[in-house]
Amino acid sequence: GKLLVVPMDGSHWFTMQSVVEKLILRGHEVVVVMPEVSWQLERSLNCTVKTYSTSYTLEDQNREFMVFAHAQWKAQAQSIFSLLMSSSSGFLDLFFSHCRSLFNDRKLVEYLKESSFDAVFLDPFDTCGLIVAKYFSLPSVVFTRGIFCHHLEEGAQCPAPLSYVPNDLLGFSDAMTFKERVWNHIVHLEDHLFCQYLFRNALEIASEILQTPVTAYDLYSHTSIWLLRTDFVLDYPKPVMPNMIFIGGINCHQGKPLPMEFEAYINASGEHGIVVFSLGSMVSEIPEKKAMAIADALGKIPQTVLWRYTGTRPSNLANNTILVKWLPQNDLLGHPMTRAFITHAGSHGVYESICNGVPMVMMPLFGDQMDNAKRMETKGAGVTLNVLEMTSEDLENALKAVINDKSYKENIMRLSSLHKDRPVEPLDLAVFWVEFVMRHKGAPHLRPAAHDLTWYQYHSLDVIGFLLAVVLTVAFITFKCCAYGYRKCLGKKGRVKKAHKSKTH
Amino acid sequence: GKLLVVPMDGSHWFTMQSVVEKLILRGHEVVVVMPEVSWQLERSLNCTVKTYSTSYTLEDQNREFMVFAHAQWKAQAQSIFSLLMSSSSGFLDLFFSHCRSLFNDRKLVEYLKESSFDAVFLDPFDTCGLIVAKYFSLPSVVFTRGIFCHHLEEGAQCPAPLSYVPNDLLGFSDAMTFKERVWNHIVHLEDHLFCQYLFRNALEIASEILQTPVTAYDLYSHTSIWLLRTDFVLDYPKPVMPNMIFIGGINCHQGKPLPMEFEAYINASGEHGIVVFSLGSMVSEIPEKKAMAIADALGKIPQTVLWRYTGTRPSNLANNTILVKWLPQNDLLGHPMTRAFITHAGSHGVYESICNGVPMVMMPLFGDQMDNAKRMETKGAGVTLNVLEMTSEDLENALKAVINDKSYKENIMRLSSLHKDRPVEPLDLAVFWVEFVMRHKGAPHLRPAAHDLTWYQYHSLDVIGFLLAVVLTVAFITFKCCAYGYRKCLGKKGRVKKAHKSKTH
Repeated sequence: GKLLVVPMDGSHWFTMQSVVEKLILRGHEVVVVMPEVSWQLERSLNCTVKTYSTSYTLEDQNREFMVFAHAQWKAQAQSIFSLLMSSSSGFLDLFFSHCRSLFNDRKLVEYLKESSFDAVFLDPFDTCGLIVAKYFSLPSVVFTRGIFCHHLEEGAQCPAPLSYVPNDLLGFSDAMTFKERVWNHIVHLEDHLFCQYLFRNALEIASEILQTPVTAYDLYSHTSIWLLRTDFVLDYPKPVMPNMIFIGGINCHQGKPLPMEFEAYINASGEHGIVVFSLGSMVSEIPEKKAMAIADALGKIPQTVLWRYTGTRPSNLANNTILVKWLPQNDLLGHPMTRAFITHAGSHGVYESICNGVPMVMMPLFGDQMDNAKRMETKGAGVTLNVLEMTSEDLENALKAVINDKSYKENIMRLSSLHKDRPVEPLDLAVFWVEFVMRHKGAPHLRPAAHDLTWYQYHSLDVIGFLLAVVLTVAFITFKCCAYGYRKCLGKKGRVKKAHKSKTH
Repeated sequence: GKLLVVPMDGSHWFTMQSVVEKLILRGHEVVVVMPEVSWQLERSLNCTVKTYSTSYTLEDQNREFMVFAHAQWKAQAQSIFSLLMSSSSGFLDLFFSHCRSLFNDRKLVEYLKESSFDAVFLDPFDTCGLIVAKYFSLPSVVFTRGIFCHHLEEGAQCPAPLSYVPNDLLGFSDAMTFKERVWNHIVHLEDHLFCQYLFRNALEIASEILQTPVTAYDLYSHTSIWLLRTDFVLDYPKPVMPNMIFIGGINCHQGKPLPMEFEAYINASGEHGIVVFSLGSMVSEIPEKKAMAIADALGKIPQTVLWRYTGTRPSNLANNTILVKWLPQNDLLGHPMTRAFITHAGSHGVYESICNGVPMVMMPLFGDQMDNAKRMETKGAGVTLNVLEMTSEDLENALKAVINDKSYKENIMRLSSLHKDRPVEPLDLAVFWVEFVMRHKGAPHLRPAAHDLTWYQYHSLDVIGFLLAVVLTVAFITFKCCAYGYRKCLGKKGRVKKAHKSKTH
């Protein structure tokens, strides 16, 4: 088949790329559309890559991301409102803007129009893929960990009872106290208020390109299949829709032999083994004071710590701590001598930890990381630290707990066996469903009729209103009849009494 | 692993048996527990079969079923209330009663207790399997097409918005008019009222065996995995839960060569081909007048009709209609010369029609058959006739439409290609999940936290009540303050005016 791919920059592309490569291997004609300016969007793909110039440079992108990343070291966004108020929205707006550049490239748009693709495979984060799918009226397959602002629940018409489905960013578990459930409702309302501002630019660009005013629902609701990079070993079980396919752990690979350098570190670590430490590809700079507190704690454990860090080397780095610019994270986590993984709890890292059965110390920073960390913590697979408030001692205690208390290892191993026990591997499942949408021009049989109802019809407010009206009317009429009857009877008795009285006087 | 199987008699066992046989082939130790008295529960299984005597004989069972089957030829149950009022409940109560016999067999109960099974694989229709699972505290895998009275939705805590999820037995589609949606709500309430009577006997027996009062929810809510013999080619898309696995079409087999007799019928049918006619294994007798009307219609089409019928031969049977006691339904439907399938729209028959791409004329009788027929009709794969009211002409027209109007064939072929395009075959998927539950002693990670909430917490009535109270209190206080402030201002103005007046007089 012929497939158009609209990816998202950053770590999102890592796993999407593996699906694209497998589709190319299976003989599909793939065209990837990407901005010229990008961090991770490699051009070395074995397929047609079409790039377009953007209104911003790589420096602009780096600068905006630095502002965003630094903001996370000051205050963690725990709701859309706080995300809006923090300087993160500049970074989001930059990402939203490149879609305008794509459609300004008339030659590219013509090329895409004439290519008669069978489907679009897209990352919804910057909504550009959704705009492309709607513009060219192509069936679409969305590839994502999750989506803020309930766009997934609304786009798929999927119920998410607030009584036990915690809002994104809150870091609540599915067993919420009354107070947490109240807060969950308030933040839900808050989302509905502020999401429109967070996506205001994106929707303006979409309306401009599509030459008609569009809402977020208009963009998300035509999705044929949602490939969700999660499963219910990580996420709490909740209602789903038939066109949601769970491919959590798609980034896990069979461990490969370690490069010599890392083999040597492990051999030198003796019986204590090693700890792997990485805050992911998106975090290259930690405020100095914080970095020193971390270095101090790392020096207090017997294990050798391999710390992937591109920032300035903390002056108090202990001998057991080795700084590296890059490390083979998945393969290291797969090594039997690896005792713990210090991570920012991004979904890639968490799944590599689950796949390899390594307990975690989690320092969530932004996005879904707080929620991932909360989930792993409630399942007993690690300890979460608030990176802003934690002291060196907190980190030291957390590490010692996770390494020495056997329950963490047992829990993560149990999660690992549950996760890896599946009928189809996530990558094969993802490839199958992209091909399914190409073969059948979408998946119309999986589209719920809820899409054709207004919100008050969906919640049956019209029916409940009607039935209430009928019941009240009947009750009112009955009451009136009884009252009338009662008065009638009373009236008669009154006359009898009077007659009786007049007789006895 | 070690698996206990608690099957249900009748056509339910056909497909469950294929899963049991595959599990035996894969080396699992399987024990099937069944009543001595049964229609279809063969003893020739290659595993341990434990039987127990029942308080009724096969004649009792046949008689009760005859009463039930005949009742369907008089009035089709379109709600639980009508099912209750019809003489069907006698048949249900007979089925519920055999569980008491199982637990009266002390030797058998001891045997089951000592066998330390890893899981129970059960058909929930007569609730006995559920009682066994609860009694021995075993993780359970439920195998069913669906369950009346919302026991599936409640047992799995699965939302089913009444605005587009039609109630069982109603034969509505997912695109309901306002009137249908009102009726859907009323029947839903009616179900809640009358289901407890329909299952009264079953719950009494359960409470007696478990020595504690139990509700239907208590029995259904411990299910680890729901293997549902449906998919969204047949059913309308709606919310589902992560522990619901869809294995619709598990009864479809690769066509085998036809016995000589049937090959001959087909060859003799010339260019017109054949029509297959069967009202399923449960219907052996059609009222004579109805049978003659059917025979009359069948005589009016050029195709050869193979009619599986064990009742008295209609006197007006035409030459093109051949009566047989049994026919290889799936293999006949797989033959290219088969033009149409006249069926009662039981889920087995409907799936064989979907798998082989044969359009249908549907005469639903009871249970889920009306709903199956409605779904196939709305998807353009066949015509539904009300078997009670239909005339010979209706049947003749329906047959000619389905055979001659190409759209029916195109629609059923489209459904067929959608249905058969799946990553895992239903039988393998069913076997995988039974083994999963045995390996992991259930699937606790798929159990939603909703089970730990009361109904008003689940619907957030307490939170909404609290928030409303807060809002009203704040509004009331604000109102009072404004009123007080207003009066204060007004009071001042009043005194000024008075002072002004006294000066000017």
